[in-house]
Amino acid sequence: MKKIKTAVLGCTGLVGRQFVRLLENHPFFVLACLTASARSAGKSYGEVSTDFCRPVVAALCIRETRAAAVIRSGARVVFSALPAAVSNELEEELRRSGICVFSNSGAHRLDAAVPLLIPEVNADHLELVQSQLREHPGFIVTNPNCVVSGLAMALKPLTTFGLRNVMVTTFQAVSGGGRRGVVAWDIMGNVVPYIAGEEEKIVRETNKILGSLKEARIESSHLEIYPSCSRVPVREGHLQSVTVEFRQPVASKTLAAAFASFGTGSRQLALPSAPVRPILLLGNEDRPQPLLDVHAGEPLRARGMAVSVGRLRVHENRCSFFLLVHNTVRGAAGGSVLNAELAFKKNLLGGLHGHD
Amino acid sequence: MKKIKTAVLGCTGLVGRQFVRLLENHPFFVLACLTASARSAGKSYGEVSTDFCRPVVAALCIRETRAAAVIRSGARVVFSALPAAVSNELEEELRRSGICVFSNSGAHRLDAAVPLLIPEVNADHLELVQSQLREHPGFIVTNPNCVVSGLAMALKPLTTFGLRNVMVTTFQAVSGGGRRGVVAWDIMGNVVPYIAGEEEKIVRETNKILGSLKEARIESSHLEIYPSCSRVPVREGHLQSVTVEFRQPVASKTLAAAFASFGTGSRQLALPSAPVRPILLLGNEDRPQPLLDVHAGEPLRARGMAVSVGRLRVHENRCSFFLLVHNTVRGAAGGSVLNAELAFKKNLLGGLHGHD
Amino acid sequence: MKKIKTAVLGCTGLVGRQFVRLLENHPFFVLACLTASARSAGKSYGEVSTDFCRPVVAALCIRETRAAAVIRSGARVVFSALPAAVSNELEEELRRSGICVFSNSGAHRLDAAVPLLIPEVNADHLELVQSQLREHPGFIVTNPNCVVSGLAMALKPLTTFGLRNVMVTTFQAVSGGGRRGVVAWDIMGNVVPYIAGEEEKIVRETNKILGSLKEARIESSHLEIYPSCSRVPVREGHLQSVTVEFRQPVASKTLAAAFASFGTGSRQLALPSAPVRPILLLGNEDRPQPLLDVHAGEPLRARGMAVSVGRLRVHENRCSFFLLVHNTVRGAAGGSVLNAELAFKKNLLGGLHGHD
Amino acid sequence: MKKIKTAVLGCTGLVGRQFVRLLENHPFFVLACLTASARSAGKSYGEVSTDFCRPVVAALCIRETRAAAVIRSGARVVFSALPAAVSNELEEELRRSGICVFSNSGAHRLDAAVPLLIPEVNADHLELVQSQLREHPGFIVTNPNCVVSGLAMALKPLTTFGLRNVMVTTFQAVSGGGRRGVVAWDIMGNVVPYIAGEEEKIVRETNKILGSLKEARIESSHLEIYPSCSRVPVREGHLQSVTVEFRQPVASKTLAAAFASFGTGSRQLALPSAPVRPILLLGNEDRPQPLLDVHAGEPLRARGMAVSVGRLRVHENRCSFFLLVHNTVRGAAGGSVLNAELAFKKNLLGGLHGHD
Repeated sequence: MKKIKTAVLGCTGLVGRQFVRLLENHPFFVLACLTASARSAGKSYGEVSTDFCRPVVAALCIRETRAAAVIRSGARVVFSALPAAVSNELEEELRRSGICVFSNSGAHRLDAAVPLLIPEVNADHLELVQSQLREHPGFIVTNPNCVVSGLAMALKPLTTFGLRNVMVTTFQAVSGGGRRGVVAWDIMGNVVPYIAGEEEKIVRETNKILGSLKEARIESSHLEIYPSCSRVPVREGHLQSVTVEFRQPVASKTLAAAFASFGTGSRQLALPSAPVRPILLLGNEDRPQPLLDVHAGEPLRARGMAVSVGRLRVHENRCSFFLLVHNTVRGAAGGSVLNAELAFKKNLLGGLHGHD
Repeated sequence: MKKIKTAVLGCTGLVGRQFVRLLENHPFFVLACLTASARSAGKSYGEVSTDFCRPVVAALCIRETRAAAVIRSGARVVFSALPAAVSNELEEELRRSGICVFSNSGAHRLDAAVPLLIPEVNADHLELVQSQLREHPGFIVTNPNCVVSGLAMALKPLTTFGLRNVMVTTFQAVSGGGRRGVVAWDIMGNVVPYIAGEEEKIVRETNKILGSLKEARIESSHLEIYPSCSRVPVREGHLQSVTVEFRQPVASKTLAAAFASFGTGSRQLALPSAPVRPILLLGNEDRPQPLLDVHAGEPLRARGMAVSVGRLRVHENRCSFFLLVHNTVRGAAGGSVLNAELAFKKNLLGGLHGHD
Repeated sequence: MKKIKTAVLGCTGLVGRQFVRLLENHPFFVLACLTASARSAGKSYGEVSTDFCRPVVAALCIRETRAAAVIRSGARVVFSALPAAVSNELEEELRRSGICVFSNSGAHRLDAAVPLLIPEVNADHLELVQSQLREHPGFIVTNPNCVVSGLAMALKPLTTFGLRNVMVTTFQAVSGGGRRGVVAWDIMGNVVPYIAGEEEKIVRETNKILGSLKEARIESSHLEIYPSCSRVPVREGHLQSVTVEFRQPVASKTLAAAFASFGTGSRQLALPSAPVRPILLLGNEDRPQPLLDVHAGEPLRARGMAVSVGRLRVHENRCSFFLLVHNTVRGAAGGSVLNAELAFKKNLLGGLHGHD
Repeated sequence: MKKIKTAVLGCTGLVGRQFVRLLENHPFFVLACLTASARSAGKSYGEVSTDFCRPVVAALCIRETRAAAVIRSGARVVFSALPAAVSNELEEELRRSGICVFSNSGAHRLDAAVPLLIPEVNADHLELVQSQLREHPGFIVTNPNCVVSGLAMALKPLTTFGLRNVMVTTFQAVSGGGRRGVVAWDIMGNVVPYIAGEEEKIVRETNKILGSLKEARIESSHLEIYPSCSRVPVREGHLQSVTVEFRQPVASKTLAAAFASFGTGSRQLALPSAPVRPILLLGNEDRPQPLLDVHAGEPLRARGMAVSVGRLRVHENRCSFFLLVHNTVRGAAGGSVLNAELAFKKNLLGGLHGHD
């Protein structure tokens, strides 16, 4: 079987580099095109990246980010690590050109016809691409904001018990702001209790993901969410302190079982980047910690794809816990690749364009 | 007027050093005795401290921490920065010797006859010392845990509006664990979502402070508090993300006014270490930050004594905000000194022992 | 006596803010004008700065950085915290307008007629302004690069013993790169062994400062200097590991005495920002440390103006030590203010323009 | 072929854990015994370690560190990660029991009959064990201090050109002080320019390693070394700024070639943990950096075993560069394992005891 040619847009940023790492040896996909801003265009990937990578990838010449370059490369699947402002129109142009876009950017996350997808949580939402395919030869699938990627996964198994509201305080790593997004003077030895636009995204995106698909539309879950976001001097991994209120008391054991059994169904799809256990419930009293747990996830290909949950405390109809999600893997590039794997298994990639 | 002779127990730790700094030039108190463990005993304070201090203080010879040494020094007031385990009996022994002990240790905080005091919050609780004075020639007054010092101050003005419950996630500085309490390997570039015993203290101590004095006893405020504590790589200043639920909707303006006017009454006592405004409500969207706001408080003597509150967000009957408290000043040594100032003004020090 | 009106160019950066702090209550100077880029122009200083400052300073309206605005303000002395690229022409324009410019920028440091000045080291070089005054109504005086500010001070007393060469490895704080100059992702938990252009500056500037004034020209000291520069995750204070080779063996005591007595002569000038002891030789085996020693310097106005030296080790004709200099105070704004104070005492400011 | 049974002494520390990681799947060795202090004794390795490890290793029960437990386990090779004070006598006792001890501790490094070994640098020194074997049934082989492990490797290829002296300033990671050795309060945002005993070790150990084996004795290389050691807030990787003086000028290209070709000979031994290129000369102007380069080394088993060298600058007969060594891998556990591999290949392990 020939692998599907893919492109990574914005390959030099922190998320772009994760895309390259995850795709450089993928069973379904092969890297055919890397793009970046004019500054890096013309250089080889090996020149601009500090990561180890396979020689064939290091030798890839970076193109300037434009639809033409991508189309010329023959890529049928495009992964976008571009900022929302840049990606908005470009992703639409690629869709019009028959390309399947898996985007980490915020531009289209709330579009009615665009799935905001986490395979273990709302695989059925992928159905939405059919509305896009009625109007375009390609489609766009998005993955949520990095905080939401972890939060929605942890909340999903709890929805069974009737969630009344959710308080979440985040401890977000500097990589969440991008390679140049957080200056050392501001964050070293400090905490900044504000990230522009983040709290709004958490409310909207979580409600879309936990929403239900009804007649080709997503009905919001209308969950009350009270987020308080902060940046901490950590490199990778968004820690979150969550307290949820249920409609009635739930036993600690019941919740633990719900976390542990979460995602069993999705295993049958055999997505290569899906972790065997999407949620790891940690027993140690001082976990999860970004440094120790950010790369959680098995098998090897799924490292950084599992969400770690710890310090589960239940008091009548309230439960508190900490969760940790790898913000540039599960919360960005890895989430997007997993979505593409789901689309592949659902014959949305092959059926459209055939393999090379 | 002669100043009252004081001793600082445990003068070489982070809290002990703050005591020395706050007392070295105090209008009511003079340092007569410094104690520490056997390791530092016999050295001058100047030898063991890296802080700038007045020559007369640098020359003070450190004694080993024992009641006899303190009593011999003629100190009538003792400030304790000892760990709970060590201070428990020693503080009782000093009380039996007619000394007024202002303790930052946790040993006696929950004793029925011991005030757990924040002058701006529950000055009336000082009344409790009368029960001690019926049995002993001296008394013990405690200040709360570092997190509670800030939290109780921020909650006090909100109690008017009928608090239903409080969620608090803390970002605690390494100085909270003491000079040697947090090892670099564990915390650098990391967050540890657990501090042993801290969450229990927050619930108990906050409820005692916000409780009411009835017939020489404190009746707990029975407030539901759900704390989640973490250690962050910050040197000084405990940041807290707080969400409270009121019994009915409260307007944002009303809350802002409550914070701003808090503590006006206590100003009449003219305590030297009391900040003009005990709570500073910050307007900038990204404050308070430990690095920028930890030393808040005016006048100069009250630096680090004000609690900064920011990012006030109100949604119907819920309100969220971040607060910052200087953990070794307002949350420890400064809180204790302020308590002693209140006792002095209430004639509990002079009336007992006269000035030297 | 009326104070001399001054302007600070680039008042919103880390160095600019130090200028404002040092000048807001200065015995000779008064702030009449603050400038910054278009982004901050029109705002009050209080709006853009996170520092405490006097209300009269907080109320100053920031102008866009242009010569016209400065001249209109009536400032006779200008302190420049601008980047070299911006300040080059502007400083010359101000000089042509009869203004005395004290610049921290690198633009004119190596100009033959411009003094590169450290009052304790080469006060006589100030003489160079006379050549400027023959061609212009004003003049430019520069202070050296932040590393050189400390290094030249420590080397000066050693020159008596015949220096053969100097090896220096620097540990430079992130503030040296400016408010936005170092991104968190690059430096957190890391060391970057390179700072563009820094090593060349160290060689050239140190040799100009240690050079001798001969017939209105500076003759380089032709000292062999081998610098290796690095950035470390420290906020303020450039630590330097120095090893010098002398032409013959020198006793450790002799060197210690030379450091201790350094700068005695310059005290007679009574410059307000000059530290009583410009070099502090520390006895503790683990000092100087940025966190503990960066603010060294007495009296209060001279905090951050003393260079700390420690770990002096002598082996025959080689001597090694660590030194620490506050990079934005002695190494930038403070150095510039001290230069202006020297010029004032030498009647180069008053003589020219009279006081308001 | 049966693998040789080994024990790791002090398995719970940072170096001990690296030993376990390197040995858990080794072609020559198998873990038969893990020891630690009484506190961890009786627990399984999986309980005390935060690292991922093979189930068979996680299940190993930790013994208290005593010779008897080691001997009982049947281990023929012992790796010691103990502190010098503890390991001194214990290692001698194991040697008397016929065990081959590969020790990272400082206790025996300078013993005349004990090789201080880096296979690529002084493989011939292994010969020294013969003198031990004349007196004991077993022997001790040591690897150098973590700084020396990198420094001696970088200096070795330069010795051909006639070294006159070496200046080295170190930037040492906190892991060098052990898991609990550096407290956060001291190092966060700081640099501490002193590490007790380190500079003396660098001089002595480097001279022993670079010394020559003459009649079963090591003659010191008598190289003049001027070390200045500091601790920086970095987790892993000791960066070093080195300046060497040669007896005559050497061209930059010549030095680069010497670094690049270093260690070619030792490849023939096919030691599993030996990196293909023991010294990596980096071309980028801002490397090596701890965060980016600490794990350098190929193949996979040799990750962290290569020394990175960068910023090579040559000026007549002086050359400066930065080097980086992984302090707990090449500088500790990895160095020790490599030594054992060399001993195995030289038939010093098998010849003695046979395989199980």
